[in-house]
Amino acid sequence: MDAALFGAGRIGKIHAGNLARQPGVALRYVVDVDAGAAAALARQHGARVATADEVFADKDVGVVVIGSSTDTHADLIVRAAAAGKAIFCEKPVDLAVDRARRCAEAVRQAGVTCLIGFQRRYDPTFNAVKERIVKGEIGEPEMLVVTSRDPGAPPVEYLKRSGGIFRDMLIHDFDIFRWILDDDAATVYATGSVLTDPAVGSVGDIDCTAVTIRTRRGRLCQINTTRRAAYGYDQRFEVIGSLGMLQANNHRPTEVVASTATAVSADLPEHFFLERYRAAYAAEMAHFFEALAKGAPVRTSIADGVAALELADAATTSWREQRIVTV
Amino acid sequence: MDAALFGAGRIGKIHAGNLARQPGVALRYVVDVDAGAAAALARQHGARVATADEVFADKDVGVVVIGSSTDTHADLIVRAAAAGKAIFCEKPVDLAVDRARRCAEAVRQAGVTCLIGFQRRYDPTFNAVKERIVKGEIGEPEMLVVTSRDPGAPPVEYLKRSGGIFRDMLIHDFDIFRWILDDDAATVYATGSVLTDPAVGSVGDIDCTAVTIRTRRGRLCQINTTRRAAYGYDQRFEVIGSLGMLQANNHRPTEVVASTATAVSADLPEHFFLERYRAAYAAEMAHFFEALAKGAPVRTSIADGVAALELADAATTSWREQRIVTV
Amino acid sequence: MDAALFGAGRIGKIHAGNLARQPGVALRYVVDVDAGAAAALARQHGARVATADEVFADKDVGVVVIGSSTDTHADLIVRAAAAGKAIFCEKPVDLAVDRARRCAEAVRQAGVTCLIGFQRRYDPTFNAVKERIVKGEIGEPEMLVVTSRDPGAPPVEYLKRSGGIFRDMLIHDFDIFRWILDDDAATVYATGSVLTDPAVGSVGDIDCTAVTIRTRRGRLCQINTTRRAAYGYDQRFEVIGSLGMLQANNHRPTEVVASTATAVSADLPEHFFLERYRAAYAAEMAHFFEALAKGAPVRTSIADGVAALELADAATTSWREQRIVTV
Amino acid sequence: MDAALFGAGRIGKIHAGNLARQPGVALRYVVDVDAGAAAALARQHGARVATADEVFADKDVGVVVIGSSTDTHADLIVRAAAAGKAIFCEKPVDLAVDRARRCAEAVRQAGVTCLIGFQRRYDPTFNAVKERIVKGEIGEPEMLVVTSRDPGAPPVEYLKRSGGIFRDMLIHDFDIFRWILDDDAATVYATGSVLTDPAVGSVGDIDCTAVTIRTRRGRLCQINTTRRAAYGYDQRFEVIGSLGMLQANNHRPTEVVASTATAVSADLPEHFFLERYRAAYAAEMAHFFEALAKGAPVRTSIADGVAALELADAATTSWREQRIVTV
Repeated sequence: MDAALFGAGRIGKIHAGNLARQPGVALRYVVDVDAGAAAALARQHGARVATADEVFADKDVGVVVIGSSTDTHADLIVRAAAAGKAIFCEKPVDLAVDRARRCAEAVRQAGVTCLIGFQRRYDPTFNAVKERIVKGEIGEPEMLVVTSRDPGAPPVEYLKRSGGIFRDMLIHDFDIFRWILDDDAATVYATGSVLTDPAVGSVGDIDCTAVTIRTRRGRLCQINTTRRAAYGYDQRFEVIGSLGMLQANNHRPTEVVASTATAVSADLPEHFFLERYRAAYAAEMAHFFEALAKGAPVRTSIADGVAALELADAATTSWREQRIVTV
Repeated sequence: MDAALFGAGRIGKIHAGNLARQPGVALRYVVDVDAGAAAALARQHGARVATADEVFADKDVGVVVIGSSTDTHADLIVRAAAAGKAIFCEKPVDLAVDRARRCAEAVRQAGVTCLIGFQRRYDPTFNAVKERIVKGEIGEPEMLVVTSRDPGAPPVEYLKRSGGIFRDMLIHDFDIFRWILDDDAATVYATGSVLTDPAVGSVGDIDCTAVTIRTRRGRLCQINTTRRAAYGYDQRFEVIGSLGMLQANNHRPTEVVASTATAVSADLPEHFFLERYRAAYAAEMAHFFEALAKGAPVRTSIADGVAALELADAATTSWREQRIVTV
Repeated sequence: MDAALFGAGRIGKIHAGNLARQPGVALRYVVDVDAGAAAALARQHGARVATADEVFADKDVGVVVIGSSTDTHADLIVRAAAAGKAIFCEKPVDLAVDRARRCAEAVRQAGVTCLIGFQRRYDPTFNAVKERIVKGEIGEPEMLVVTSRDPGAPPVEYLKRSGGIFRDMLIHDFDIFRWILDDDAATVYATGSVLTDPAVGSVGDIDCTAVTIRTRRGRLCQINTTRRAAYGYDQRFEVIGSLGMLQANNHRPTEVVASTATAVSADLPEHFFLERYRAAYAAEMAHFFEALAKGAPVRTSIADGVAALELADAATTSWREQRIVTV
Repeated sequence: MDAALFGAGRIGKIHAGNLARQPGVALRYVVDVDAGAAAALARQHGARVATADEVFADKDVGVVVIGSSTDTHADLIVRAAAAGKAIFCEKPVDLAVDRARRCAEAVRQAGVTCLIGFQRRYDPTFNAVKERIVKGEIGEPEMLVVTSRDPGAPPVEYLKRSGGIFRDMLIHDFDIFRWILDDDAATVYATGSVLTDPAVGSVGDIDCTAVTIRTRRGRLCQINTTRRAAYGYDQRFEVIGSLGMLQANNHRPTEVVASTATAVSADLPEHFFLERYRAAYAAEMAHFFEALAKGAPVRTSIADGVAALELADAATTSWREQRIVTV
């Protein structure tokens, strides 16, 4: 099957590498506004640089992978759906809920497969927790505590176009909430502060948040995040059920433990998302092609993309208006 | 110095044992509505059974330890203060903020030492975190996540008189919040559910809670609690600062690790508060007598007792009225 | 029951404190060549200073606790046995196997209870491993790996009279071997080096050892020790059986974990044996009086003391003569 | 650069996959006595099935990867060296030291690069320990304790041709010893037993061993191994130096921790060597081609292969003759 890739940046390279390992799949085209980046990545994978029009016009292209900037996602999804191509798109669908919903509708009408890149659901550790919950190991899930901390805030220029911390960063955590507790939000309460860098506040954003979601069945979820954890990328969650607790802890580069005159110490967590979720990105791409081959639904659908965005919107409102938002 | 103990129950026995280890301190009287329990504990420690009147009339009694039921605390504090005796009183001061404030005023006017038993501040692990924060190891504290879970709900009869989960159980966590973040609450949001046992709901209480506190300086605190953790008593917190994170983790009975065909496993946490905080109770009593000897203030004053109760009240209101409460 | 204590030093104080907590037991006499130390400890516990003759002549003394220097043990054991007193004696029985055997014979003939202070068998962690092996959790034990490292070598003056590292330090590990594998040694191979301090070598001793014991049933045991672990007192062992492995790991002062820009770190192990085995010393004394009360055998008998010394002798010979010693 | 692969079995597939990821390298030929396996692997990688003669005759083949059975290694190394091809050969060089030495001599004379597959040296965890020792983090290394346990014994048919446990299994541990302590063995003592399966003994082999190596500088190494660890593949070592200790611990499939009513438990170690050393095999192949490109020496040379085999021989003699062997 022939594939085209939109976006030759950091995440595009990851997807290109994973595409290359799928049996029977060939990367044919790379599209990027940066001609040099597109050419380099195309050359590495035996593909060629193309325009979006060329991609959508080529009947042999069955799959498009969208890893370009967020503001291009909605348009590319709609065009790909219209062209009958299967879609693998980085999160988020869009920063505006109504546009995201229109994308979902376009996908539905076209009947194409569309996976939204919530890669965490494909992480071996996170996925093992989900499977063990489903098997009943901890009985009924009751509470979820999500810790999601970045090693440092992105540049202010990025933040300006990011949609704010809830849509940019916590959207992953909202997806984890929906996936793990398997219940609908009834109310959302969000608060936050600028504690790590005043520059974040200067563009109307915050860098630390505390979110609480109560579900229709009364289950509780707390999410705590910061843009700057001095010790690195901290990605954990724990879910408590009637029979016990499952914790998804951090991954480390090595399993070395050092004992010196001052402390017994282990590695910092994996540095950032490209390292932490390396296996997840690979599994996500494999899952996409498996689902395509079987005609099966994907684990992270465009509906999931819309739903997480709705929660991000609710959290943004809660924070801005300092009130509990009923979903 | 002669001491008298009110309450010969579970916690009274702990305090009696710790009193016995203080150099130069003798337990003289035990007071309890249960004559048999009072007699047994008195006999074990070479003390005698007495009435409250006898205790307060005895000029040789310099210290009273109050470990009787919550509804007796306020009255005993006021009488002890009037009699000029140093006071060691189990938390809470009272279930009503106004009565607690009157106790604090009585203590202030009498100029006696009064320690309220927030024993967690004396736990070696919790206390080490506090000391390391004060030394600047993680820079400015920014966020606090408190996990506080009991191994099982108390009987409904107990719950009826408990003042509700926020005043009975989370009062400890509110004290940890004040101590660790060292900042005043600006807003409190609390929600909760009955998830573990409908009987809890039948007396108007809840068994799972999620609380968020925002401080005047914008620091954030999340507390998650449940009355029933299948794996035991789960008492942890983590505080994130500009330079890193400090975590206070669970204590275990032993350091055995078993590797079998199914898993690598360690002990459950210490069973419940008497085991978990054994060292804390001992250190608390030693601190009390050290402070008395030096004329120094105690680490957990009656003002701390009032302040934690005020937060419990705010959380109760937030939960009941489903709104954010400004403190 | 009245008790007498020989030795008012470091370990004597520990035993005195634990004696004081035994119901119905009173410390009556303290004997020490250092009159000041004896007086101080006697005063603290309401006892009085005495000579050995006075102790053995007093019919009311039912128990002697021997915590004086090693060269006094054998004589005191023999006299105490002759006087019909129950004996609690620090390890080793003696540095010479033949004298130790004569002590054992004296104890046997007198029919008195005699506990030798292999306190590790009373440690909650080590003891839990033993109990779980006995319950069959790992099937038949096959291999044992013992890690036993001190935080620093004692003064050379001490080493001169210590009997050498195998009799002084590894005697505990030989006892662990006998207890855990519950089998007799067939061969012993020991080697070692002076790696941490040439002064150790100057008195004919070594500071690092590697010992291998093969039992009659073919089970294997490896012991590794050093006098100087920069990170503190390292006391672990692991036993592998047909169904799995049990590990006894180090205890730490607190359960704090710090995550900073350089590492995720936990506390060093408990500093040295007084801290590490605090609970063990308390349990050992309680076990002794329980055994006395029930007329039951003690867990660490004088026969165990002799047997561990025999292994220490075999290891010393193996190291000195560079050959495998058949036991 | 064109490459040929000998051996299309389990390890051959791993090497083929890693070859495919090297930039500028093409797998041209697959050679295997099993024609079907050769054809399948060749097809998957766009190579073709060939004979050894064809491979050695093809001037375009610059590299041969030898993953066929042990008895073919020596012959293929000698032929490859004669043909001037760079060699990547699975351990061991051969089961006979003299043949292994002749291979090393052939490689030396031909001046070709030859890497022997001691993949553990390329493992991220093990390699990090080595690098941190070299940087001086724990001062001078003094003692090494190696734990090396398989999840289960191979079939008796395999054991018959394996050269015995010391040459087949411990050869890796002997290489770790040489690499980590960076010193020459002076004496070797080995003992062992048949404890897990009498069938192992029926072919003159053992399944549990305890080895002690003393180096010329007096450093000590203990190795403990078993063919059957019920909990899986246990691959750890710890090295103690003057300033502290570095431990290389097991890797786990996920970082999930489960807390239930009975225990707090984590994953078993990675199942066996293909899983545990997946990253190591990839890094080993990358290192080989990097060394080739730079004309630099490889980390695991044929001299290392010979030296480890010499230690395996010494250990075998020690075990069989029940004596300490001087190397």
